[in-house]
Amino acid sequence: MDTQRLQKRLQSFADARDWEQYHSPKNLASALCVEAGELLELFLWMVGEESRLVAGDPDLKGRAREEIADIQIYLLRLADKLDIDLEAAVEDKIERNAEKYPPEEVRDRDPWKED
Amino acid sequence: MDTQRLQKRLQSFADARDWEQYHSPKNLASALCVEAGELLELFLWMVGEESRLVAGDPDLKGRAREEIADIQIYLLRLADKLDIDLEAAVEDKIERNAEKYPPEEVRDRDPWKED
Amino acid sequence: MDTQRLQKRLQSFADARDWEQYHSPKNLASALCVEAGELLELFLWMVGEESRLVAGDPDLKGRAREEIADIQIYLLRLADKLDIDLEAAVEDKIERNAEKYPPEEVRDRDPWKED
Amino acid sequence: MDTQRLQKRLQSFADARDWEQYHSPKNLASALCVEAGELLELFLWMVGEESRLVAGDPDLKGRAREEIADIQIYLLRLADKLDIDLEAAVEDKIERNAEKYPPEEVRDRDPWKED
Repeated sequence: MDTQRLQKRLQSFADARDWEQYHSPKNLASALCVEAGELLELFLWMVGEESRLVAGDPDLKGRAREEIADIQIYLLRLADKLDIDLEAAVEDKIERNAEKYPPEEVRDRDPWKED
Repeated sequence: MDTQRLQKRLQSFADARDWEQYHSPKNLASALCVEAGELLELFLWMVGEESRLVAGDPDLKGRAREEIADIQIYLLRLADKLDIDLEAAVEDKIERNAEKYPPEEVRDRDPWKED
Repeated sequence: MDTQRLQKRLQSFADARDWEQYHSPKNLASALCVEAGELLELFLWMVGEESRLVAGDPDLKGRAREEIADIQIYLLRLADKLDIDLEAAVEDKIERNAEKYPPEEVRDRDPWKED
Repeated sequence: MDTQRLQKRLQSFADARDWEQYHSPKNLASALCVEAGELLELFLWMVGEESRLVAGDPDLKGRAREEIADIQIYLLRLADKLDIDLEAAVEDKIERNAEKYPPEEVRDRDPWKED
């Protein structure tokens, strides 16, 4: 995913509509909450294992795809506004998580205590 | 951002910890809601314009960077579990938004009515 | 629950701290998202049936109680700011839901299609 | 608000539709996230002060009233499922907040540092 190209395109999109004024980090973070809620709504009354079957349900998968795209778009936009390199942030976090959750310790942990 | 490489790495990460069982689409969508809430909390009592200054505040920017990374990680993981191509989904959505919101119409619209 | 008394108390609480300025409906709705995310985090990696056992786990129940209280407080505050009678709103909604979801129709419906 | 009467009514409502199976604490917390997101969406592109004007806008106020009712309904239901007394939880939290945020200290605090 060419994040810089997409971010430029989203900036042009906002500028052409005079929407830059609405795209403060606060509003973009709010938009992420709204979109994450719309995504979760698709799975709300399923048990976890049922939700895995959505990959094979063209209608629900299509709706999930739209919500996932919305989240990715707002996330690209927010990272741009805060001058954050998305890929570097992800790499750093995966490394920190690897230190925080050593496989051998995690495997035997009570998931109720996991956070 | 090499989404496929990251998704493989995240799959290995989950497998090594026996976490695949927890990573149903439903749980990953829930995790996105939780992380989006943690991100929004950083900006909660600011007005929009203040939140733009976070780009220049190393402490708050660092915390936002971590939450943004968490969201990106769960989004990569969810797209993988649902067999959705993130970049294609984003491209499609930007095109649909361009048709839905023609610049000339949007510029004069009452933002209260926007959705 | 004496909602009016609680709302007056919360208004005094905000006034004494000069917080009225922060308690716009937009910010209170954002706070509800943040708190709902913190509540969901407690149940994130459980399956649904496990989460029912939290009623008998003093530590987790205590944490859920705090998040539930936060949500109720922000909801009381938001209803007050928008001049909405909480109980009447609930009564109206239950009646509308009863018409929208007749028991005999709902019982045989595919929950995947429910919304 | 007669919370016990409402909780009994909501339990009968669920039983008549065979919905008790869906109303685990986890699912109810997820529903709260979804509804809080729908509520926030109403205010998403407003600045805080604009959102105060929603109290005088019958259409938007009506939509906010429905979302607020949904949140209250799920919160009543969740408190019931976890055997939590809503009003006592609120009273306790207000007292704890009063100790945590003494008025004289809070008034001069930088809101960016508030949490």
